Amino acid sequence: MPTRAGASLVTTLLTDEPAALLRFRYGTEPSFDAAPSWLYEGMAEAFRRGAARLAVAGDDPWLLSHEDQEKVSRVNRATSKAYRPALELIARFETNWTIVPSATPAWAAAVFPNLPKDEALARLWEHIFSASRINHVDPVTAWKEHDANLHRRANHLNERRYSALHFRGPETDLRVGLADDHLWLGGGMTARNGLYCIANIPTEEVFTTPHKDRVEGYVTSTKPLSYKGTMIENIRVKFEGGRIVQAGASRGGEVLQRMIETDEGARRLGEVALVPHSSPIASSGLLFLNTLFDENAACHIALGHSYSSCFRGGAGLTQDQLASQGANSSLIHVDWMIGSNRMDVDAITAAGDSVPLMRAGEWV
Amino acid sequence: MPTRAGASLVTTLLTDEPAALLRFRYGTEPSFDAAPSWLYEGMAEAFRRGAARLAVAGDDPWLLSHEDQEKVSRVNRATSKAYRPALELIARFETNWTIVPSATPAWAAAVFPNLPKDEALARLWEHIFSASRINHVDPVTAWKEHDANLHRRANHLNERRYSALHFRGPETDLRVGLADDHLWLGGGMTARNGLYCIANIPTEEVFTTPHKDRVEGYVTSTKPLSYKGTMIENIRVKFEGGRIVQAGASRGGEVLQRMIETDEGARRLGEVALVPHSSPIASSGLLFLNTLFDENAACHIALGHSYSSCFRGGAGLTQDQLASQGANSSLIHVDWMIGSNRMDVDAITAAGDSVPLMRAGEWV
Repeated sequence: MPTRAGASLVTTLLTDEPAALLRFRYGTEPSFDAAPSWLYEGMAEAFRRGAARLAVAGDDPWLLSHEDQEKVSRVNRATSKAYRPALELIARFETNWTIVPSATPAWAAAVFPNLPKDEALARLWEHIFSASRINHVDPVTAWKEHDANLHRRANHLNERRYSALHFRGPETDLRVGLADDHLWLGGGMTARNGLYCIANIPTEEVFTTPHKDRVEGYVTSTKPLSYKGTMIENIRVKFEGGRIVQAGASRGGEVLQRMIETDEGARRLGEVALVPHSSPIASSGLLFLNTLFDENAACHIALGHSYSSCFRGGAGLTQDQLASQGANSSLIHVDWMIGSNRMDVDAITAAGDSVPLMRAGEWV
Repeated sequence: MPTRAGASLVTTLLTDEPAALLRFRYGTEPSFDAAPSWLYEGMAEAFRRGAARLAVAGDDPWLLSHEDQEKVSRVNRATSKAYRPALELIARFETNWTIVPSATPAWAAAVFPNLPKDEALARLWEHIFSASRINHVDPVTAWKEHDANLHRRANHLNERRYSALHFRGPETDLRVGLADDHLWLGGGMTARNGLYCIANIPTEEVFTTPHKDRVEGYVTSTKPLSYKGTMIENIRVKFEGGRIVQAGASRGGEVLQRMIETDEGARRLGEVALVPHSSPIASSGLLFLNTLFDENAACHIALGHSYSSCFRGGAGLTQDQLASQGANSSLIHVDWMIGSNRMDVDAITAAGDSVPLMRAGEWV
């Protein structure tokens, strides 16, 4: 239990998926543009007063797939807007936080649709334990080593100060300019309250922030994106001057369209992340339909808000200063997977030279 | 479902009894004086912005009975303090609100300890439906009639402007002076947002506010009090000048003691209520171990905060003005039952005459 580690007051906020569905079934028309801002403002206040955040994720990836997608989008937008003050504090690591997965029957059934329910749940737990290095003989040491490796990788990239990344793969040819004074991160970090935290468990990525105006070319998703209860498959978008000028998907295209119409920043990148194809999660060969897992199985990009922690001295910079260095601003931050064992990644130096970073999905 | 009645956004806050227990098992020492004030402040803000409140009560009456009662008291105190701003808005009916019961396995097992679990749950639901007049042919009309009866009863008492009540029964001889410009209430009322609400379902009481300095004599509880997961039985207290000068109980005496030590107001009365012994809940002969039921089965008094709505024009009065009229102020408001079929109640007029109100637990 969390408090065995010495936590003080623990306040649990439980979500209820049946109640979330009832909303779409019985809610009045104006309610779909409403969000409990008092609750999110309260959470922000709690973070300001020093509360840590432990999110336990086990959502049913299909929960909202049969609901009216226009209403789903409106709810997502209203919620993102109300949640923003709290999210800002989280993104700036004003407090320590982490997200961990927990197997639920609905999630397990989505990942293993052909297994009996009990077996599906047990299998998902096994994968969670394996991906989270819990079944190592000494999980704490295993995490320390893994964390050190991710830091080494990020430091290496930080020393090089590359100006762009070039992704090439099937139906992908994308040049992602990196923000000025960008910082690669990976593994844990010390939050501004002085506590060290690993924000995502599991984690396999090193990531930084693209320059919002310097993304060119086209890119195709390599795994379905489970986005707030709906599924978006085979996303294909084209960037010009950092902005999506063309977007489609073989499934969930309407949801994608509404997502990128959330605001101007929703059409631009807020994150780019490198993950080798040999990561334990990718090796499982499974689609977990959960960003916490799937984003750690493949190189990915995120549409929307960028993290100020991905800038040198970012915590001390104003939003205007960050924007002038290329930081993107949006109500959303949605990761989706573009990596595979057929993806090559080159780094581009300030002088314009190409340096191979990954070949066939693996670090060079 | 609530939203079928046209509710807008519905935000559910779920409590989790196992988590509440874990707190007592694993919480750090200082955590027992802490409360999530950010959450309660948020709720107050929600009420200010027009949110209604629907509380669904089905607590396990025995939940905390095996925990360290000193820690339980500290938690109750910290929670009451943090909740106070929200409770003030509720007590003043700034918004419409109601509390309704819902049968839970733990509550049902406490009420029917000798029945199989399923049967206990079904029986408790039957009693909830019966007490809440849901199994009438036309429940809405039944409620309108019942509500009109309670209003008639309250109006009658308001016209008389009695200055005190005198309770006599086995081990009870208590004179409860009523506050200046007190107002008897019963049934539903129009909240300050203009919406009519019946704050408790079921409800059988008419009630008003005693004068905090004018309570004399001794009184003995006639039903056990289930107080935040512990049971207090055979409470016996003596009042002088409105203040408890002696208190004991055959069980839970320590919890009672800590409760009345919460603050100065916790030793004084904030409510007095009249309920005939023939009320449907009393007729069931059951002890529900839930204030929502048990307080509607018998005349009762409450220690602690009084309701400004129990004063003529109370909503427009300051706390100081209310206090000068006899209103009590406290972090707590705890009802307990003093009525029975052996209780006589007289009203005392301003001239000092006695008028019989109830004999052997029934209205005269």
